[in-house]
Amino acid sequence: MKQPRALRTRESIVQAAAQVFDELGYSGSSIAKIVERCGTTPGAVYFHFKSKEALADAVMEAQSRTVLPRLESQRLQRVVDATIVWAHQLQTDPLLRAGVRLTSERGTYQAHVGSPYETWVSILENDLEEAQRAGELQPGVEPRELAEFILEACTGIQMYAAATTRRNDLPVLVERMWRYLLPGVAVPAMITQVLTRSTWTLEPT
Amino acid sequence: MKQPRALRTRESIVQAAAQVFDELGYSGSSIAKIVERCGTTPGAVYFHFKSKEALADAVMEAQSRTVLPRLESQRLQRVVDATIVWAHQLQTDPLLRAGVRLTSERGTYQAHVGSPYETWVSILENDLEEAQRAGELQPGVEPRELAEFILEACTGIQMYAAATTRRNDLPVLVERMWRYLLPGVAVPAMITQVLTRSTWTLEPT
Repeated sequence: MKQPRALRTRESIVQAAAQVFDELGYSGSSIAKIVERCGTTPGAVYFHFKSKEALADAVMEAQSRTVLPRLESQRLQRVVDATIVWAHQLQTDPLLRAGVRLTSERGTYQAHVGSPYETWVSILENDLEEAQRAGELQPGVEPRELAEFILEACTGIQMYAAATTRRNDLPVLVERMWRYLLPGVAVPAMITQVLTRSTWTLEPT
Repeated sequence: MKQPRALRTRESIVQAAAQVFDELGYSGSSIAKIVERCGTTPGAVYFHFKSKEALADAVMEAQSRTVLPRLESQRLQRVVDATIVWAHQLQTDPLLRAGVRLTSERGTYQAHVGSPYETWVSILENDLEEAQRAGELQPGVEPRELAEFILEACTGIQMYAAATTRRNDLPVLVERMWRYLLPGVAVPAMITQVLTRSTWTLEPT
């Protein structure tokens, strides 16, 4: 798909910002460093983003766009796939790594904007609501609550993996979460199915 | 219980260090600031701790000692109670708050020592092994894996609560984790029991 030039420029600025945020953190980054990384002009950056904070917001928003296009599945399967793709991609994708670093740097970036978790919670909640309507969830499971818990657990899994194995076993830990969590939230017919029939891809999109 | 004076001094230094780490983070803290907070002498601090890093290690170690004495329960009930006491105590106890802050500041403190998660994983694993021997866990649940997942989930829950509600609903979020997790890991007879019959106290120990 061919994008208008302004959109391509904006995207390349977001990618450069992600690399800089990932490497230097929010407080260590500056628009000057992002301009340098991008090979564009300060004017081009300021045309799209009025501040470093706006750039960080754009990086946070772009996280879901790097995961969602890889998913071909629906409902509960899509929720499982999203976490597993995220776990794989986090090992190499600057956008996701920057998102993690910005999220963990409370007090600098996060003090100024809304919760960076909200985009992901809404996406997962929406898929879980569809799963509920399709009878995939056990009675009593609230899509919003479960979406929040999945996000909380993945956040902690990522921190634990970063501290203990430099994230090498992150996908394994996410699959483990599902093994322990699914029997409590999914109807029996779904449990084996969603763990064995993942329909996602790690090919470039 | 009366402690020898050296032990009391050591404990008061650890408490002061926890306050300073909680407020200023690892890189913002110094032995001088901890000496000042404690009202003791640099000599007394260096008698017990050879470096700021050793003080941070002591704070990490002391976390479990502020939670465990409040638990009267055993096995799976003890694991549930530990997480709920931790959630309540984290709202006010400088030792636990410092532990959380030190854990999240990878690259400064954590680069020099082993994983700060290990103490908690061992404690939970031990209780879960006893739960397994007592027939409280479902077949196929591995105590070590489940201990790690509980720790990962609690870490993420704490971060989410800190970002969204300044930790006000942390105990509610931890109870929610158990509601969704227990059906997949505990035998049916235990599920309602451990959520309704907590035997822990928030009284001072």
